[in-house]
Amino acid sequence: MRRETLDDNLTQLQAMLDEMGPLVVTAFRNASDALLNNRRRLAEQVVARDHIIDGHRAAIELLAVETMALHQPMVTPLRSVITALRCSQQLERMGDLARHIAQVVVRAGDGPALPEQAVELFTRYGTLVTALGEKAVTVLGTRNVVLACELESDDDAVDEVHRSVFELMFGPTWGAGVPAAVDAALLARFHERYADHCVRLADHVVYAVTGATPDEIAL
Amino acid sequence: MRRETLDDNLTQLQAMLDEMGPLVVTAFRNASDALLNNRRRLAEQVVARDHIIDGHRAAIELLAVETMALHQPMVTPLRSVITALRCSQQLERMGDLARHIAQVVVRAGDGPALPEQAVELFTRYGTLVTALGEKAVTVLGTRNVVLACELESDDDAVDEVHRSVFELMFGPTWGAGVPAAVDAALLARFHERYADHCVRLADHVVYAVTGATPDEIAL
Repeated sequence: MRRETLDDNLTQLQAMLDEMGPLVVTAFRNASDALLNNRRRLAEQVVARDHIIDGHRAAIELLAVETMALHQPMVTPLRSVITALRCSQQLERMGDLARHIAQVVVRAGDGPALPEQAVELFTRYGTLVTALGEKAVTVLGTRNVVLACELESDDDAVDEVHRSVFELMFGPTWGAGVPAAVDAALLARFHERYADHCVRLADHVVYAVTGATPDEIAL
Repeated sequence: MRRETLDDNLTQLQAMLDEMGPLVVTAFRNASDALLNNRRRLAEQVVARDHIIDGHRAAIELLAVETMALHQPMVTPLRSVITALRCSQQLERMGDLARHIAQVVVRAGDGPALPEQAVELFTRYGTLVTALGEKAVTVLGTRNVVLACELESDDDAVDEVHRSVFELMFGPTWGAGVPAAVDAALLARFHERYADHCVRLADHVVYAVTGATPDEIAL
């Protein structure tokens, strides 16, 4: 039996991240679809499948720690291992947020989780944030630093939709009452947090490649 | 000039965590105080001082990575370094949540951030979660695994208060309207997330000491 080299482990870690990323993107896309189209069964699937994402995080963590202990990597490979650790945590949190959205849909039972007047805004919000997640996972797979730095400005659009949700709820036309407003506020927050984790994920990749944070690179 | 040994660095990392923990506990206590007693100036201080907490996280991260690169620690010390990395992240997130609470108070301007009828519940919630933070930071300083495992059951009390907040808002006596309900829902969530990070912080310490998660220990 051949003992794994440091390079084997690094390749394996990247392969595990490449497997985990799309699961998280799919979880969010499905959660958003379930929310916008009252697909309760789909929401239940997102909730149930979150354990798989957590399992990936645990497996990556185990291999990362093992790699550090067995191979004691020097600066550049060490950066890759630490990045794998960090990215798996970010991805797990993103999966949790998709699950939180799905849980709101599940709790809503047979009724819609969103009042009619909020559907358009959340459609925009969901599309935007799904795309951000896809881009972050692409960055993770390709280590494209320029694309990574784009995510910062994409996040501004997220802030704008986020504000619109609160303007709608606090405006005079909101007729859906308190419980719907509370759900909408939490749903907005889950979207915003997910987007924030996408930006952080990209930041970690920038660190892996360059040893610096995006601020330090100042593209 | 004497070159730092691995032990020097481990001691230094622990000292940095011991310094960071109380800052976070104080931030949360002040945010809760500001919320319950409409102390806007105090809330502004919590927001302003969050940079200090972020700075601690960055400094710990730097030293942890440096320690791994220069000393290539074996299994047990490596666990300590990884734990320092993780704990500094948890503490930073806890600081962020204290800041989020303070920001709600700042946004409320001269008016109260909480409607009168929610003050009693949030007093209980704040006391409970402040104590949880203190206990988690004690665990971090003392590496007391038994105390660490206690945090899991403490968290049940948090879930109970959390549910009560939503029962209040969705009940027939809620007269404070939509914006106040949205703020209360977000504030409740910030408390709950903070408590959750306390539990995770303790879990990391258990891992540092034993190499296992609390589930695996089954006290």
